[in-house]
Amino acid sequence: MASKNPVEFWFDFSSPYAYLASAQIAEIADEYGRSVMWRPFLLGAVFKETGARPNVDNPFKKEYMGRDVARFARLYEMDFIWPEPFPVSTLVPARIFYWVERYQPEKVGDFVGSVFDSFFSRGRNIAEASVVLDAAADVGLDRAVLEEALEEPVVKERLKAVNDEAIKRKIFGAPITVVDGEMFWGADRLWMVEEWLQSGGW
Amino acid sequence: MASKNPVEFWFDFSSPYAYLASAQIAEIADEYGRSVMWRPFLLGAVFKETGARPNVDNPFKKEYMGRDVARFARLYEMDFIWPEPFPVSTLVPARIFYWVERYQPEKVGDFVGSVFDSFFSRGRNIAEASVVLDAAADVGLDRAVLEEALEEPVVKERLKAVNDEAIKRKIFGAPITVVDGEMFWGADRLWMVEEWLQSGGW
Repeated sequence: MASKNPVEFWFDFSSPYAYLASAQIAEIADEYGRSVMWRPFLLGAVFKETGARPNVDNPFKKEYMGRDVARFARLYEMDFIWPEPFPVSTLVPARIFYWVERYQPEKVGDFVGSVFDSFFSRGRNIAEASVVLDAAADVGLDRAVLEEALEEPVVKERLKAVNDEAIKRKIFGAPITVVDGEMFWGADRLWMVEEWLQSGGW
Repeated sequence: MASKNPVEFWFDFSSPYAYLASAQIAEIADEYGRSVMWRPFLLGAVFKETGARPNVDNPFKKEYMGRDVARFARLYEMDFIWPEPFPVSTLVPARIFYWVERYQPEKVGDFVGSVFDSFFSRGRNIAEASVVLDAAADVGLDRAVLEEALEEPVVKERLKAVNDEAIKRKIFGAPITVVDGEMFWGADRLWMVEEWLQSGGW
């Protein structure tokens, strides 16, 4: 039934605001009897389309963001460190995600949490396959199987299709939460997502 | 005493998110025994420094923003229409603001509200001096006096000094609310401003 659509959570594994929102969104969706449809994509692919630049290219915004993300993490009582290097390519975790979604869908939430934890709480470089495979193994996924999957054309194609969908649906940033077709951008906007879920819109 | 610093509200009169936040910020400040220090500036002057571009230059973001601002206004039960043209130069209202602040400081809040109302609720072009003078007259300010003030070098210098301060303090966007030195960007972040005022920070 329409009111039970999953809450879509579009993000790039390299977005600290997506990391901060990720724990909250699962709780919020659950509270309203919804599931979360995790939608990792490559923000760079969309930026190529819109001509947008990463926040960290703006020196004033970069400084604000550094302070703001840390402050957000303290408020939510989440671990947080700035990974080095940052940002990084998230091709590997995004590809693996869609393999997990297809073959072990019950593990997707754990996998997302484990990759975010590797990057933003332990500072490991999630551009590297070995780091992502470690994160997968930590939540009971089979490292050897995923290592092979990473090279399969179907896995590459799947992520490409998701990136195309992001562009088509004008998912211009991350995180973007979609509730019954309505988009909400940012980690600071989850209160509005909750209002929308509760009221059915206004 | 330190805990009674005014809440600084940095904005450009052409920012719809600043309009949406403006009513809320006055209420929030009041609730915690603070005054609002309105700080209109020219966002374009800061963008020149950082190389940032207006949101409306990004076609995907522009479309989201159109929907989001209207949705925000409905939630806050505020009038809202997209002015045409948009965005516009806000040199005139910003200059007049600083004259009002100097000579009739008790009127600044009313003046800000009246200019925002002209632009975002009645769609009048606030780049035009006659429109801003009408808005000023609506809240009991002297039209003829302000018309003369607009050409005074001291008024021009004052706005220039404020723009320089914005750049120095890295006020990269609008609205930006500053509480005891701590910056919060956006209209969707006022809940965090409230938490900060209430707790004194974390």
